[in-house]
Amino acid sequence: MRIPKHIGIIPDGNRRWAVKNGMTKDKGYALGINPGLILFKQCKKYGIEEITFYGFTVDNTKRPNEQKLAFTEACINSVQLLTKEDCEILVMGNTKSTSFPKDLIPFTKRRTFGKGGMKVNFLINYGWEWDLNELKSADEKKKNIYNNIHSNDISRIDLIIRWGGRRRLSGFLPVQSVYSDFYVVDDFWPDFKPEHLDEALNWYNEQDVTLGG
Amino acid sequence: MRIPKHIGIIPDGNRRWAVKNGMTKDKGYALGINPGLILFKQCKKYGIEEITFYGFTVDNTKRPNEQKLAFTEACINSVQLLTKEDCEILVMGNTKSTSFPKDLIPFTKRRTFGKGGMKVNFLINYGWEWDLNELKSADEKKKNIYNNIHSNDISRIDLIIRWGGRRRLSGFLPVQSVYSDFYVVDDFWPDFKPEHLDEALNWYNEQDVTLGG
Repeated sequence: MRIPKHIGIIPDGNRRWAVKNGMTKDKGYALGINPGLILFKQCKKYGIEEITFYGFTVDNTKRPNEQKLAFTEACINSVQLLTKEDCEILVMGNTKSTSFPKDLIPFTKRRTFGKGGMKVNFLINYGWEWDLNELKSADEKKKNIYNNIHSNDISRIDLIIRWGGRRRLSGFLPVQSVYSDFYVVDDFWPDFKPEHLDEALNWYNEQDVTLGG
Repeated sequence: MRIPKHIGIIPDGNRRWAVKNGMTKDKGYALGINPGLILFKQCKKYGIEEITFYGFTVDNTKRPNEQKLAFTEACINSVQLLTKEDCEILVMGNTKSTSFPKDLIPFTKRRTFGKGGMKVNFLINYGWEWDLNELKSADEKKKNIYNNIHSNDISRIDLIIRWGGRRRLSGFLPVQSVYSDFYVVDDFWPDFKPEHLDEALNWYNEQDVTLGG
Protein backbone atom coordinates (compact mmCIF):
# COMPACT_ATOMS: atom_id res chain seq x y z
CA MET A 1 0.00 0.00 0.00
CA ARG A 2 1.19 3.49 -0.89
CA ILE A 3 1.27 5.50 2.35
CA PRO A 4 1.53 9.31 2.25
CA LYS A 5 4.61 10.76 3.91
CA HIS A 6 2.83 13.89 5.06
CA ILE A 7 -0.87 14.34 5.87
CA GLY A 8 -2.60 17.69 6.41
CA ILE A 9 -5.54 17.67 8.81
CA ILE A 10 -8.34 20.25 8.62
CA PRO A 11 -10.44 19.44 11.71
CA ASP A 12 -13.55 21.40 10.75
CA GLY A 13 -17.09 21.24 12.09
CA ASN A 14 -16.53 21.75 15.84
CA ARG A 15 -19.09 24.56 16.03
CA ARG A 16 -21.67 22.78 13.93
CA TRP A 17 -21.19 19.68 16.08
CA ALA A 18 -21.84 21.75 19.23
CA VAL A 19 -25.02 23.29 17.85
CA LYS A 20 -26.26 19.90 16.67
CA ASN A 21 -25.71 18.59 20.19
CA GLY A 22 -27.52 21.44 21.90
CA MET A 23 -24.47 23.40 23.06
CA THR A 24 -23.20 26.89 22.28
CA LYS A 25 -20.72 26.98 19.40
CA ASP A 26 -17.65 27.57 21.56
CA LYS A 27 -18.20 24.29 23.40
CA GLY A 28 -17.30 22.21 20.33
CA TYR A 29 -13.57 22.84 20.35
CA ALA A 30 -12.73 20.95 23.55
CA LEU A 31 -14.28 17.86 22.00
CA GLY A 32 -11.74 18.07 19.18
CA ILE A 33 -8.69 17.46 21.38
CA ASN A 34 -8.98 13.73 21.96
CA PRO A 35 -9.63 12.92 18.27
CA GLY A 36 -6.30 14.60 17.47
CA LEU A 37 -4.44 12.34 19.88
CA ILE A 38 -6.14 9.21 18.53
CA LEU A 39 -5.35 10.27 14.96
CA PHE A 40 -1.73 10.97 15.89
CA LYS A 41 -1.29 7.48 17.35
CA GLN A 42 -2.96 5.90 14.34
CA CYS A 43 -0.68 7.78 11.91
CA LYS A 44 2.35 6.76 13.93
CA LYS A 45 1.31 3.11 13.78
CA TYR A 46 0.96 3.35 9.99
CA GLY A 47 4.44 4.85 9.56
CA ILE A 48 3.36 8.31 8.43
CA GLU A 49 6.33 10.64 8.85
CA GLU A 50 4.69 14.03 9.28
CA ILE A 51 1.23 15.46 10.06
CA THR A 52 0.08 19.06 10.14
CA PHE A 53 -2.99 20.16 12.10
CA TYR A 54 -4.85 23.29 11.04
CA GLY A 55 -5.23 24.87 14.47
CA PHE A 56 -6.52 28.38 13.94
CA THR A 57 -5.89 31.21 11.50
CA VAL A 58 -5.53 34.95 11.62
CA ASP A 59 -8.96 35.05 9.94
CA ASN A 60 -10.47 32.90 12.71
CA THR A 61 -9.42 35.36 15.43
CA LYS A 62 -12.12 37.76 14.23
CA ARG A 63 -14.77 35.41 15.63
CA PRO A 64 -16.65 36.15 18.91
CA ASN A 65 -14.37 36.25 21.93
CA GLU A 66 -15.73 33.15 23.69
CA GLN A 67 -15.02 31.13 20.54
CA LYS A 68 -11.54 32.58 20.22
CA LEU A 69 -10.77 31.70 23.83
CA ALA A 70 -12.14 28.20 23.34
CA PHE A 71 -10.22 27.30 20.18
CA THR A 72 -7.01 28.85 21.55
CA GLU A 73 -7.28 26.77 24.71
CA ALA A 74 -8.05 23.62 22.71
CA CYS A 75 -4.92 24.21 20.61
CA ILE A 76 -2.70 24.75 23.66
CA ASN A 77 -4.06 21.58 25.28
CA SER A 78 -3.54 19.61 22.06
CA VAL A 79 0.10 20.61 21.83
CA GLN A 80 0.72 19.91 25.50
CA LEU A 81 -0.88 16.46 25.27
CA LEU A 82 1.54 15.52 22.49
CA THR A 83 4.60 16.47 24.55
CA LYS A 84 3.96 13.22 26.42
CA GLU A 85 4.32 11.20 23.19
CA ASP A 86 7.30 10.36 21.00
CA CYS A 87 7.27 13.11 18.39
CA GLU A 88 8.88 16.28 17.06
CA ILE A 89 6.59 19.26 17.51
CA LEU A 90 6.57 22.54 15.60
CA VAL A 91 4.09 25.37 16.07
CA MET A 92 3.88 27.67 13.03
CA GLY A 93 2.14 31.03 12.96
CA ASN A 94 2.39 34.76 13.38
CA THR A 95 3.89 35.26 16.85
CA LYS A 96 3.95 39.04 16.50
CA SER A 97 0.22 39.33 17.16
CA THR A 98 -1.48 39.25 20.57
CA SER A 99 -3.65 36.41 19.27
CA PHE A 100 -0.67 34.07 19.39
CA PRO A 101 -0.81 32.18 22.72
CA LYS A 102 2.28 32.80 24.86
CA ASP A 103 2.18 29.19 26.11
CA LEU A 104 3.09 28.02 22.62
CA ILE A 105 6.08 30.32 22.02
CA PRO A 106 8.49 27.58 23.23
CA PHE A 107 7.29 25.36 20.38
CA THR A 108 7.99 27.74 17.51
CA LYS A 109 11.28 25.98 16.84
CA ARG A 110 10.94 22.23 16.35
CA ARG A 111 11.49 20.28 19.56
CA THR A 112 11.84 16.57 20.13
CA PHE A 113 9.79 14.81 22.80
CA GLY A 114 10.36 11.26 24.04
CA LYS A 115 12.12 9.30 21.32
CA GLY A 116 10.99 11.78 18.65
CA GLY A 117 10.49 10.23 15.21
CA MET A 118 7.28 11.67 13.81
CA LYS A 119 6.94 15.33 12.94
CA VAL A 120 3.76 17.02 14.16
CA ASN A 121 3.07 20.58 13.06
CA PHE A 122 0.35 22.86 14.40
CA LEU A 123 -0.70 25.96 12.49
CA ILE A 124 -1.50 28.48 15.21
CA ASN A 125 -2.53 32.04 14.33
CA TYR A 126 -1.44 31.08 10.83
CA GLY A 127 -2.24 33.23 7.81
CA TRP A 128 -1.58 32.31 4.19
CA GLU A 129 -0.80 35.96 3.43
CA TRP A 130 1.57 36.18 6.39
CA ASP A 131 3.27 32.99 5.14
CA LEU A 132 3.70 34.19 1.54
CA ASN A 133 4.64 37.74 2.47
CA GLU A 134 7.97 36.38 3.64
CA LEU A 135 8.82 35.93 -0.06
CA LYS A 136 9.09 39.69 -0.40
CA SER A 137 12.27 39.67 1.66
CA ALA A 138 13.81 36.80 -0.33
CA ASP A 139 16.65 37.06 -2.80
CA GLU A 140 15.11 37.56 -6.26
CA LYS A 141 17.70 35.30 -7.85
CA LYS A 142 16.82 32.31 -5.70
CA LYS A 143 13.94 30.64 -7.45
CA ASN A 144 12.99 28.15 -4.77
CA ILE A 145 9.72 29.06 -3.08
CA TYR A 146 9.64 26.48 -0.27
CA ASN A 147 12.85 27.78 1.32
CA ASN A 148 11.66 31.36 1.39
CA ILE A 149 8.26 31.25 3.06
CA HIS A 150 7.66 31.39 6.80
CA SER A 151 6.55 27.76 6.89
CA ASN A 152 9.77 26.48 5.31
CA ASP A 153 10.16 23.74 7.95
CA ILE A 154 6.88 22.13 6.83
CA SER A 155 7.27 19.81 3.85
CA ARG A 156 5.10 19.24 0.78
CA ILE A 157 1.79 17.59 1.71
CA ASP A 158 0.68 14.39 -0.03
CA LEU A 159 -2.82 14.08 1.35
CA ILE A 160 -5.12 16.63 2.97
CA ILE A 161 -8.12 15.34 4.92
CA ARG A 162 -10.86 17.75 5.83
CA TRP A 163 -13.66 16.91 8.25
CA GLY A 164 -17.05 18.64 8.22
CA GLY A 165 -17.97 18.25 4.55
CA ARG A 166 -16.57 21.43 3.05
CA ARG A 167 -14.47 21.10 -0.08
CA ARG A 168 -12.06 23.99 0.19
CA LEU A 169 -8.58 24.63 1.56
CA SER A 170 -9.45 27.83 3.48
CA GLY A 171 -5.91 29.15 3.25
CA PHE A 172 -4.22 25.94 4.44
CA LEU A 173 -0.52 26.12 3.43
CA PRO A 174 -1.01 27.21 -0.19
CA VAL A 175 2.53 26.28 -1.23
CA GLN A 176 2.76 22.86 0.42
CA SER A 177 -0.69 21.91 -0.89
CA VAL A 178 -0.28 22.65 -4.61
CA TYR A 179 -0.06 18.95 -5.50
CA SER A 180 -1.93 17.45 -2.52
CA ASP A 181 -4.76 14.99 -2.97
CA PHE A 182 -7.80 16.27 -1.12
CA TYR A 183 -10.16 13.97 0.76
CA VAL A 184 -13.31 15.18 2.49
CA VAL A 185 -15.07 13.45 5.41
CA ASP A 186 -18.66 14.55 5.89
CA ASP A 187 -18.70 13.91 9.64
CA PHE A 188 -17.78 16.75 11.98
CA TRP A 189 -14.32 16.58 13.56
CA PRO A 190 -15.53 15.76 17.11
CA ASP A 191 -17.17 12.67 15.56
CA PHE A 192 -13.76 11.46 14.31
CA LYS A 193 -13.46 7.70 13.92
CA PRO A 194 -10.26 5.80 12.99
CA GLU A 195 -12.21 4.46 10.00
CA HIS A 196 -12.14 7.96 8.49
CA LEU A 197 -8.36 7.85 8.21
CA ASP A 198 -8.50 4.31 6.84
CA GLU A 199 -10.99 5.35 4.16
CA ALA A 200 -8.86 8.35 3.23
CA LEU A 201 -5.74 6.18 2.98
CA ASN A 202 -7.53 3.58 0.87
CA TRP A 203 -8.71 6.32 -1.49
CA TYR A 204 -5.21 7.85 -1.59
CA ASN A 205 -3.76 4.46 -2.46
CA GLU A 206 -5.82 4.46 -5.68
CA GLN A 207 -4.57 7.87 -6.84
CA ASP A 208 -1.50 8.34 -8.99
CA VAL A 209 1.27 10.80 -8.27
CA THR A 210 2.20 13.14 -11.09
CA LEU A 211 3.39 16.30 -9.31
CA GLY A 212 1.96 18.23 -12.23
CA GLY A 213 3.99 16.29 -14.83
CA MET B 1 -29.67 31.08 -6.63
CA ARG B 2 -26.17 32.07 -5.55
CA ILE B 3 -24.03 32.21 -8.70
CA PRO B 4 -20.22 32.31 -8.46
CA LYS B 5 -18.58 35.39 -9.94
CA HIS B 6 -15.48 33.55 -11.05
CA ILE B 7 -15.13 29.87 -11.98
CA GLY B 8 -11.85 28.04 -12.47
CA ILE B 9 -11.87 25.19 -14.98
CA ILE B 10 -9.41 22.28 -14.81
CA PRO B 11 -10.16 20.33 -18.01
CA ASP B 12 -8.37 17.12 -17.10
CA GLY B 13 -8.59 13.64 -18.59
CA ASN B 14 -7.92 14.32 -22.29
CA ARG B 15 -5.20 11.67 -22.48
CA ARG B 16 -7.16 9.07 -20.54
CA TRP B 17 -10.15 9.75 -22.79
CA ALA B 18 -7.98 9.15 -25.89
CA VAL B 19 -6.59 5.86 -24.57
CA LYS B 20 -10.08 4.70 -23.56
CA ASN B 21 -11.23 5.44 -27.11
CA GLY B 22 -8.38 3.57 -28.78
CA MET B 23 -6.27 6.59 -29.76
CA THR B 24 -2.79 7.69 -28.79
CA LYS B 25 -2.70 10.05 -25.81
CA ASP B 26 -1.93 13.20 -27.83
CA LYS B 27 -5.16 12.84 -29.82
CA GLY B 28 -7.32 13.70 -26.81
CA TYR B 29 -6.55 17.40 -26.66
CA ALA B 30 -8.29 18.44 -29.88
CA LEU B 31 -11.50 16.96 -28.50
CA GLY B 32 -11.29 19.37 -25.59
CA ILE B 33 -11.71 22.52 -27.67
CA ASN B 34 -15.42 22.40 -28.40
CA PRO B 35 -16.40 21.64 -24.78
CA GLY B 36 -14.62 24.87 -23.78
CA LEU B 37 -16.73 26.90 -26.20
CA ILE B 38 -19.97 25.29 -25.03
CA LEU B 39 -19.02 25.89 -21.40
CA PHE B 40 -18.16 29.52 -22.16
CA LYS B 41 -21.57 30.16 -23.72
CA GLN B 42 -23.32 28.44 -20.85
CA CYS B 43 -21.45 30.53 -18.24
CA LYS B 44 -22.28 33.68 -20.18
CA LYS B 45 -25.95 32.77 -20.20
CA TYR B 46 -25.87 32.26 -16.42
CA GLY B 47 -24.28 35.67 -15.82
CA ILE B 48 -20.91 34.41 -14.61
CA GLU B 49 -18.45 37.29 -14.82
CA GLU B 50 -15.12 35.54 -15.19
CA ILE B 51 -13.78 32.09 -16.03
CA THR B 52 -10.22 30.80 -16.04
CA PHE B 53 -9.17 27.76 -18.06
CA TYR B 54 -6.15 25.75 -16.98
CA GLY B 55 -4.45 25.43 -20.38
CA PHE B 56 -1.01 23.99 -19.75
CA THR B 57 1.74 24.42 -17.19
CA VAL B 58 5.50 24.63 -17.16
CA ASP B 59 5.40 21.14 -15.61
CA ASN B 60 3.31 19.82 -18.53
CA THR B 61 5.91 20.88 -21.10
CA LYS B 62 8.17 18.05 -19.92
CA ARG B 63 5.79 15.54 -21.51
CA PRO B 64 6.59 13.76 -24.82
CA ASN B 65 6.87 16.15 -27.75
CA GLU B 66 3.79 14.98 -29.68
CA GLN B 67 1.69 15.64 -26.57
CA LYS B 68 3.26 19.05 -26.06
CA LEU B 69 2.52 20.00 -29.67
CA ALA B 70 -1.03 18.74 -29.38
CA PHE B 71 -1.97 20.58 -26.18
CA THR B 72 -0.26 23.76 -27.36
CA GLU B 73 -2.24 23.70 -30.61
CA ALA B 74 -5.48 22.98 -28.77
CA CYS B 75 -4.87 25.99 -26.51
CA ILE B 76 -4.12 28.30 -29.44
CA ASN B 77 -7.27 27.14 -31.22
CA SER B 78 -9.35 27.60 -28.08
CA VAL B 79 -8.22 31.20 -27.66
CA GLN B 80 -8.76 31.99 -31.33
CA LEU B 81 -12.27 30.51 -31.27
CA LEU B 82 -13.22 32.85 -28.45
CA THR B 83 -12.08 35.95 -30.34
CA LYS B 84 -15.30 35.50 -32.36
CA GLU B 85 -17.41 35.83 -29.20
CA ASP B 86 -18.23 38.77 -26.91
CA CYS B 87 -15.57 38.52 -24.21
CA GLU B 88 -12.40 39.96 -22.70
CA ILE B 89 -9.48 37.58 -23.14
CA LEU B 90 -6.30 37.36 -21.11
CA VAL B 91 -3.54 34.79 -21.58
CA MET B 92 -1.37 34.37 -18.48
CA GLY B 93 1.92 32.50 -18.35
CA ASN B 94 5.67 32.62 -18.62
CA THR B 95 6.36 34.23 -22.00
CA LYS B 96 10.12 34.12 -21.51
CA SER B 97 10.29 30.41 -22.30
CA THR B 98 10.30 28.85 -25.79
CA SER B 99 7.32 26.74 -24.68
CA PHE B 100 5.10 29.82 -24.75
CA PRO B 101 3.34 29.87 -28.16
CA LYS B 102 4.15 33.01 -30.17
CA ASP B 103 0.60 33.10 -31.55
CA LEU B 104 -0.67 33.92 -28.06
CA ILE B 105 1.70 36.80 -27.27
CA PRO B 106 -0.89 39.37 -28.49
CA PHE B 107 -3.27 38.14 -25.77
CA THR B 108 -0.98 38.64 -22.78
CA LYS B 109 -2.63 41.96 -22.05
CA ARG B 110 -6.41 41.76 -21.70
CA ARG B 111 -8.22 42.51 -24.96
CA THR B 112 -11.89 43.02 -25.66
CA PHE B 113 -13.63 41.13 -28.48
CA GLY B 114 -17.10 41.89 -29.80
CA LYS B 115 -19.08 43.61 -27.10
CA GLY B 116 -16.76 42.28 -24.37
CA GLY B 117 -18.46 41.72 -21.03
CA MET B 118 -17.19 38.41 -19.69
CA LYS B 119 -13.58 37.89 -18.70
CA VAL B 120 -11.96 34.71 -19.99
CA ASN B 121 -8.48 33.83 -18.77
CA PHE B 122 -6.26 31.08 -20.14
CA LEU B 123 -3.27 29.84 -18.16
CA ILE B 124 -0.67 29.05 -20.82
CA ASN B 125 2.80 27.85 -19.86
CA TYR B 126 1.74 28.84 -16.36
CA GLY B 127 3.74 27.84 -13.30
CA TRP B 128 2.71 28.39 -9.70
CA GLU B 129 6.35 29.00 -8.76
CA TRP B 130 6.76 31.46 -11.61
CA ASP B 131 3.61 33.25 -10.41
CA LEU B 132 4.68 33.49 -6.77
CA ASN B 133 8.30 34.32 -7.53
CA GLU B 134 7.11 37.75 -8.62
CA LEU B 135 6.54 38.48 -4.91
CA LYS B 136 10.30 38.58 -4.44
CA SER B 137 10.48 41.84 -6.37
CA ALA B 138 7.59 43.41 -4.42
CA ASP B 139 7.88 46.13 -1.84
CA GLU B 140 8.17 44.45 1.57
CA LYS B 141 5.97 47.06 3.19
CA LYS B 142 3.01 46.39 0.91
CA LYS B 143 1.17 43.50 2.49
CA ASN B 144 -1.25 42.77 -0.33
CA ILE B 145 -0.38 39.53 -2.10
CA TYR B 146 -2.87 39.66 -5.00
CA ASN B 147 -1.38 42.87 -6.42
CA ASN B 148 2.15 41.55 -6.40
CA ILE B 149 1.98 38.22 -8.19
CA HIS B 150 2.24 37.76 -11.96
CA SER B 151 -1.43 36.81 -12.24
CA ASN B 152 -2.65 40.00 -10.56
CA ASP B 153 -5.25 40.60 -13.29
CA ILE B 154 -7.03 37.35 -12.36
CA SER B 155 -9.45 37.72 -9.45
CA ARG B 156 -10.22 35.45 -6.50
CA ILE B 157 -11.96 32.25 -7.61
CA ASP B 158 -15.25 31.20 -6.03
CA LEU B 159 -15.64 27.76 -7.56
CA ILE B 160 -13.12 25.41 -9.18
CA ILE B 161 -14.45 22.55 -11.29
CA ARG B 162 -12.08 19.76 -12.23
CA TRP B 163 -12.95 17.09 -14.76
CA GLY B 164 -11.34 13.64 -14.82
CA GLY B 165 -11.92 12.60 -11.21
CA ARG B 166 -8.74 13.81 -9.54
CA ARG B 167 -9.13 15.80 -6.34
CA ARG B 168 -6.14 18.11 -6.41
CA LEU B 169 -5.31 21.60 -7.61
CA SER B 170 -2.06 20.69 -9.45
CA GLY B 171 -0.64 24.18 -9.03
CA PHE B 172 -3.74 26.02 -10.27
CA LEU B 173 -3.46 29.68 -9.11
CA PRO B 174 -2.54 29.00 -5.47
CA VAL B 175 -3.36 32.53 -4.34
CA GLN B 176 -6.71 32.96 -6.09
CA SER B 177 -7.84 29.50 -4.96
CA VAL B 178 -7.22 29.75 -1.20
CA TYR B 179 -10.95 30.06 -0.44
CA SER B 180 -12.40 28.36 -3.54
CA ASP B 181 -14.98 25.63 -3.31
CA PHE B 182 -13.73 22.61 -5.22
CA TYR B 183 -16.05 20.41 -7.28
CA VAL B 184 -14.89 17.28 -9.09
CA VAL B 185 -16.56 15.71 -12.13
CA ASP B 186 -15.58 12.10 -12.70
CA ASP B 187 -16.08 12.21 -16.49
CA PHE B 188 -13.12 13.11 -18.67
CA TRP B 189 -13.09 16.63 -20.12
CA PRO B 190 -13.83 15.60 -23.75
CA ASP B 191 -17.04 14.03 -22.39
CA PHE B 192 -18.17 17.42 -21.04
CA LYS B 193 -21.95 17.86 -20.77
CA PRO B 194 -23.75 21.08 -19.79
CA GLU B 195 -25.27 19.07 -16.91
CA HIS B 196 -21.82 18.97 -15.31
CA LEU B 197 -21.80 22.73 -14.86
CA ASP B 198 -25.40 22.67 -13.63
CA GLU B 199 -24.55 20.04 -11.02
CA ALA B 200 -21.52 22.02 -9.89
CA LEU B 201 -23.58 25.21 -9.60
CA ASN B 202 -26.32 23.44 -7.65
CA TRP B 203 -23.72 22.07 -5.28
CA TYR B 204 -22.07 25.49 -4.96
CA ASN B 205 -25.44 27.03 -4.15
CA GLU B 206 -25.63 24.85 -1.03
CA GLN B 207 -22.22 25.92 0.31
CA ASP B 208 -21.73 28.87 2.60
CA VAL B 209 -19.15 31.59 2.07
CA THR B 210 -16.88 32.30 5.01
CA LEU B 211 -13.61 33.44 3.39
CA GLY B 212 -11.84 31.83 6.31
CA GLY B 213 -13.79 33.84 8.92
